[in-house]
Amino acid sequence: MGARLPFDLIRMHEQVSSPPERRIKASVQRMSGYVPGEQPASADIIKLNTNENPYPPAPGVADVCHDFDLDKLRQYPDPVSAPLCDQLAGLYGCHAENVIVGNGSDEILALCTRAFVEDDQKIGFFDPSYSLYPILSDIRDVPVVVTPLGDAFEWREPVVDGCGLFMLANPNAPSGLSIDSARVRAFCEAFEGVVIVDEAYAEFADDHCLALALELPNVLVVRTLSKSYALAGIRLGYALGHPALISALMKIKDSYNVNALTQAMASAALADQDYLVATVSRVKATRARLQEALQALDFDVVPSQTNFLFVRPTHRRADALFAALRERNILVRHFTDERVCDYLRISVGTDDEIDALLRALKDIQSS
Amino acid sequence: MGARLPFDLIRMHEQVSSPPERRIKASVQRMSGYVPGEQPASADIIKLNTNENPYPPAPGVADVCHDFDLDKLRQYPDPVSAPLCDQLAGLYGCHAENVIVGNGSDEILALCTRAFVEDDQKIGFFDPSYSLYPILSDIRDVPVVVTPLGDAFEWREPVVDGCGLFMLANPNAPSGLSIDSARVRAFCEAFEGVVIVDEAYAEFADDHCLALALELPNVLVVRTLSKSYALAGIRLGYALGHPALISALMKIKDSYNVNALTQAMASAALADQDYLVATVSRVKATRARLQEALQALDFDVVPSQTNFLFVRPTHRRADALFAALRERNILVRHFTDERVCDYLRISVGTDDEIDALLRALKDIQSS
Repeated sequence: MGARLPFDLIRMHEQVSSPPERRIKASVQRMSGYVPGEQPASADIIKLNTNENPYPPAPGVADVCHDFDLDKLRQYPDPVSAPLCDQLAGLYGCHAENVIVGNGSDEILALCTRAFVEDDQKIGFFDPSYSLYPILSDIRDVPVVVTPLGDAFEWREPVVDGCGLFMLANPNAPSGLSIDSARVRAFCEAFEGVVIVDEAYAEFADDHCLALALELPNVLVVRTLSKSYALAGIRLGYALGHPALISALMKIKDSYNVNALTQAMASAALADQDYLVATVSRVKATRARLQEALQALDFDVVPSQTNFLFVRPTHRRADALFAALRERNILVRHFTDERVCDYLRISVGTDDEIDALLRALKDIQSS
Repeated sequence: MGARLPFDLIRMHEQVSSPPERRIKASVQRMSGYVPGEQPASADIIKLNTNENPYPPAPGVADVCHDFDLDKLRQYPDPVSAPLCDQLAGLYGCHAENVIVGNGSDEILALCTRAFVEDDQKIGFFDPSYSLYPILSDIRDVPVVVTPLGDAFEWREPVVDGCGLFMLANPNAPSGLSIDSARVRAFCEAFEGVVIVDEAYAEFADDHCLALALELPNVLVVRTLSKSYALAGIRLGYALGHPALISALMKIKDSYNVNALTQAMASAALADQDYLVATVSRVKATRARLQEALQALDFDVVPSQTNFLFVRPTHRRADALFAALRERNILVRHFTDERVCDYLRISVGTDDEIDALLRALKDIQSS
């Protein structure tokens, strides 16, 4: 049972002579884990650091949660989330065989590294891009091929020598820039391996690559309910693509990867497309206002197709400004990598949160 | 947005000339996926096939779900489930550094194959045992070393040549037998690699191996809330062991592997140990009654330390009896592997469900 062990077991590993390290795979010993954005405990903090939606999920989601029949939780969830796959197929005009759902899109990205990359192949991606990609490559224990983006983070022809998989965040993070889908198509048509178009922010963008996933045999589009649907807490991502690619991912996923409540709540969120459109419009309106205000404060602002702005302060170092904002209980994201260390990534919050941010920035500039 | 694609995109992959198969890792092409126990849609079926708990989860779990602040779901969950790890450490008298929680214990088992096995090593387990182990080994793309259990499914000294990892279900499934913890200790002390003691059913058993996980540098005990806590639907598993082993798993897990609701509901379930004890006692009492009744009907019954019985009908073939029960809307589990195809695995249901099962069996025997 849950019985406590005798207290002296806490001596446990202290006298152990045999080091456990040699039992851990060498590549895992060498690597570092992913560093998630900070989740502060204090409720007083204005949190503009992890690209969460400032608005709550659709009202139907709350109904599902609050009315949920707990007796259902005794049973295992649907292992393949069949009703949710049907619903997504209906939404995008494809077949359920084109769809897989996962425990967040992170799970699907990780599955792709195991399904589409042989041990002697490599994984390609741009720099800068989503900081999880190199970690996933380390976990998969294969080399990476990094294509540096241009000076303004613009497209460069990807280097793909020896790559089985290319991970393309579009719109990109942390830049917020979108790559034209025609350009992505040309790349996918020329590439021998599988391309993951990671569209975590697509609902905030003018263009997307869904057609590529449904027309080409080597493209998966990956999306998430974490941003536009305001449901980062439930962990629901999905991918669309050729049934053969989807079926490979299905074989190797955890048997019951998406829990019963998440399946039900995700279904309610997807059912309310009007709410999605309204929420996304509000975020985009605030994004436009924030961009203008930051430019008026002499920030360089990268044109954003996402729910965040990637900005370069010109009056002060980015790390110093990050710290000054943090002192004022405003949390944005600063990355220390050389390529992006002059920038801050600011999630688009509510209008009130953005007003508070702008007041703080003016206050800091005048101090 | 969620805009439908033009309908003619459904032509999509049909004209595609380039076969996607060659883009899928060869080992994934070769393997079969895990086959979960059937989850029938009909509510009329007495479901004794997947070892779910017949009683609902603790009342506090329902409170958490029904009162949950939906606005919290905008945000990412705690990536390392810190409060839950603290709570589990308190329950077992160890440190939070000894604990990892996962999206079901299946996730943790899969992580272990990636953290503790080099590419040129193997994974060992008994036969018969949990049917997921060979699938996880296929996914990890390493050879297996299978040790056949004795004629009555009793312990045999494991063969571990070249193994980095040994997966030991204890109590075992589908047999229901428990191996003495002293015998497990001796094996772990002699083995150079990591031993996973998969204690999915430990709360229904008289013995367990928690002390090994907290004393030895190469043992992880893995547990789940799916069975004894009646929470298969939320996906929550955990492992206890040496901080170096736990830390390796932490590095390679999905960043946000356990969703916010599951973290909160699991905490409520773990907080009510009295309810756990009461539920487990009821299941064990029904198990004893079912065992006696089945023996009176001339079944061979393997002594069970779990919430199921592994039984061999003597009047009729197991597959025929499975089918006859299914016709009567009673679902049990039959495995086709040669080693166990003469047996049925019957989950311990409520007393009413067991009475219905016994009536059906008598009815079938007299027909």
